[in-house]
Amino acid sequence: MTDPTTPEYAAARDAADPLAGLRDRFLGAETPLVYFDGNSLGRPLRSTADRLERFVREEWGGRLIRGWDEGWFDLPLIIGDDLARVLLGAAPGQTAIGDSTTVLLYKLIRAAADHQVRTDPRRTEIVIDTDNFPTDRYVVEGIAAERGLTVRWIEVDLVAGVTPDLVRAAVGSATGVVVLSQVAYRSSHLADAAAITEIVHDAGGLMLWDLCHSAGSVDVALDAWGADLAVGCSYKYLNGGPGAPAFAYVAARHQDTLAQPIQGWMGHADPFAMGPGYRPAPGMRRFISGTPAVVGMLAMRDMVALVEEAGMTAVRDKARRLTSYAVDLADAWLQPLGVTVGSPRDPARRGGHVTFYHPSMRAVTAALWDQDVLPDYRDAHGLRVGLSPLSTSFEEVRRGMEAVRATLARIGG
Amino acid sequence: MTDPTTPEYAAARDAADPLAGLRDRFLGAETPLVYFDGNSLGRPLRSTADRLERFVREEWGGRLIRGWDEGWFDLPLIIGDDLARVLLGAAPGQTAIGDSTTVLLYKLIRAAADHQVRTDPRRTEIVIDTDNFPTDRYVVEGIAAERGLTVRWIEVDLVAGVTPDLVRAAVGSATGVVVLSQVAYRSSHLADAAAITEIVHDAGGLMLWDLCHSAGSVDVALDAWGADLAVGCSYKYLNGGPGAPAFAYVAARHQDTLAQPIQGWMGHADPFAMGPGYRPAPGMRRFISGTPAVVGMLAMRDMVALVEEAGMTAVRDKARRLTSYAVDLADAWLQPLGVTVGSPRDPARRGGHVTFYHPSMRAVTAALWDQDVLPDYRDAHGLRVGLSPLSTSFEEVRRGMEAVRATLARIGG
Repeated sequence: MTDPTTPEYAAARDAADPLAGLRDRFLGAETPLVYFDGNSLGRPLRSTADRLERFVREEWGGRLIRGWDEGWFDLPLIIGDDLARVLLGAAPGQTAIGDSTTVLLYKLIRAAADHQVRTDPRRTEIVIDTDNFPTDRYVVEGIAAERGLTVRWIEVDLVAGVTPDLVRAAVGSATGVVVLSQVAYRSSHLADAAAITEIVHDAGGLMLWDLCHSAGSVDVALDAWGADLAVGCSYKYLNGGPGAPAFAYVAARHQDTLAQPIQGWMGHADPFAMGPGYRPAPGMRRFISGTPAVVGMLAMRDMVALVEEAGMTAVRDKARRLTSYAVDLADAWLQPLGVTVGSPRDPARRGGHVTFYHPSMRAVTAALWDQDVLPDYRDAHGLRVGLSPLSTSFEEVRRGMEAVRATLARIGG
Repeated sequence: MTDPTTPEYAAARDAADPLAGLRDRFLGAETPLVYFDGNSLGRPLRSTADRLERFVREEWGGRLIRGWDEGWFDLPLIIGDDLARVLLGAAPGQTAIGDSTTVLLYKLIRAAADHQVRTDPRRTEIVIDTDNFPTDRYVVEGIAAERGLTVRWIEVDLVAGVTPDLVRAAVGSATGVVVLSQVAYRSSHLADAAAITEIVHDAGGLMLWDLCHSAGSVDVALDAWGADLAVGCSYKYLNGGPGAPAFAYVAARHQDTLAQPIQGWMGHADPFAMGPGYRPAPGMRRFISGTPAVVGMLAMRDMVALVEEAGMTAVRDKARRLTSYAVDLADAWLQPLGVTVGSPRDPARRGGHVTFYHPSMRAVTAALWDQDVLPDYRDAHGLRVGLSPLSTSFEEVRRGMEAVRATLARIGG
């Protein structure tokens, strides 16, 4: 039972998995499909279909406009606080659901960069790494161009990722805000967020963490790190559905001093007075702009509750075990075919996915999709295996990796 | 049968209404509840509950990440084009669904104001009326403050609204962009959009129309007016659900020259290359920022299809007849109690709602809600009766107005 490539080994791992029973809560868990892309779009919970249907009939259809008074208005902050408690390591009153990751990045980076320059005109740099997710890089470039600021790029090795040393070398008296992802979208590299945040603070900078690929798969401790700002999406490990709203965290100590640029009625201190002149609400509400996307934020609630039931520690532990198993199988099956592991081999430095490189991976991914095995492809030549901890079994990992091997052997030339 | 206050009169009007049969398509139409707030949150269609439930099971749950390739990616532009054809009088390729009204206002006003100043540094004014919806005013004030521009306020009489003469007096060589609502959220005043757009253009300004209170209740003809930009929400007359995404229109002639500030991956020319440097997509896609809110934009599709089935001309005609009936009932029942009509009496100058003023209207609205009669209250002292054309019957209008009379007579003292 020590050969990881056997079906018996996978079955034994599932039998020993304390979270195995939760997999059936997800739609499609009973099908033979292998889902290696829960880090791009999480599977829906079975309860979500009913929840949406019931919401339309009973709440929207039954309560109509009264729903706003009866809970919808505060939903971005209520779900935000749940998320903060269960997944983000953040005290209440600092997290709100809304907009998209891109729009929230814009609002918070603008708020932070503008504040820094106002306080000290020399702090004109926005620091970001070259391997950050595209939308983070594009938003930062846009803000720098419009505000007359400079982008300072941290050049990173794909697998080694953003290290404290690289950050220390990049920050200083010109640093305004630093924008990094806790888990890198390609390599899965897990940054040392506590150490990096301290380095940024020592240089007088503000630290924004992108949690898109980490919330729900690794430990997040925003308050303990002393993070200033964070954003993340809800359609990956939070299973909020395609294009579900994102979340924003602003540390309480900054809420009264940071001003975000999109000042809308829902961030007003007294929105229904509809009076002249914008007056920002106290606390986290001022970071909300338009009408909350109520229908879009229902699904993630179920997932936050499920993570609370499972316990984030157990979820993180399973993420580690699943990715280690995928690496073990790659060592046995894929390395002989010329595949390299493009993620940290140390599970403590890795998020919930693993990327494998081979020149044929674009074609392999396409061929796998035709067999209902769904990994993601990421340039250049990377096959990304995302292992959403609560919806993925060891048996599924084994079956999927076996399909990768067979497909690569067939077309990998 | 000429006394509009009799039940028989209302029944006859319903019997003669070619759209009466469509009311049953909406959830709750069979209940005794009177819904006078479909202009704030439209009722769900019956088909919407099933559509969402089916989407979760079949598309999200069944197709998983493949859904993006199979249609979701283009959904903002596909639904945008449907909306444009059926409701906005706009050719394809100029309308996209996404974000919230507030965020879209920010993006488009920034794009237009920045462009104007770049082209002619004297064009430093954003023109808006004092009775525009709060979020429009707040966004404009925020943009003016951050960009060093000036807000030029058009002071309007609540009922007379924004007239061509008022606009002519406000625009000139300093005009950058003009932001007006086609239908005023309190008075229901319907602006002469064609004439005003021409006046703004003659002065060298760009014209942005807010269609929140007009799309789905009055004729909109963006292309024929020569409008430059428009935004609107989908949760009122488009029945998209609480907080459903908004829509943006950018005239084709401007798409290559206007740059919106929130440059995200979904507006990139090649988003999945994930390469360095933002390169805006050609056409309307560049005005999209983050991942499209797929779940949130499903419901409005049903309503766009229903409006197409009914025909926008018939919908507009019914909106006129319903609001005229409410005014007739107010003349008979409410005027003797001291109520004044706060909307244009000419139905050609009025949108889909009517506002009635009386010092007791705040208390009256609260008392009506207790009886399942749901109008909206708008400061100061306004009871707003919203009559969503396809989901409202004449019998419902009569019953609701009778409840207003009885409640006002009881507590109006």
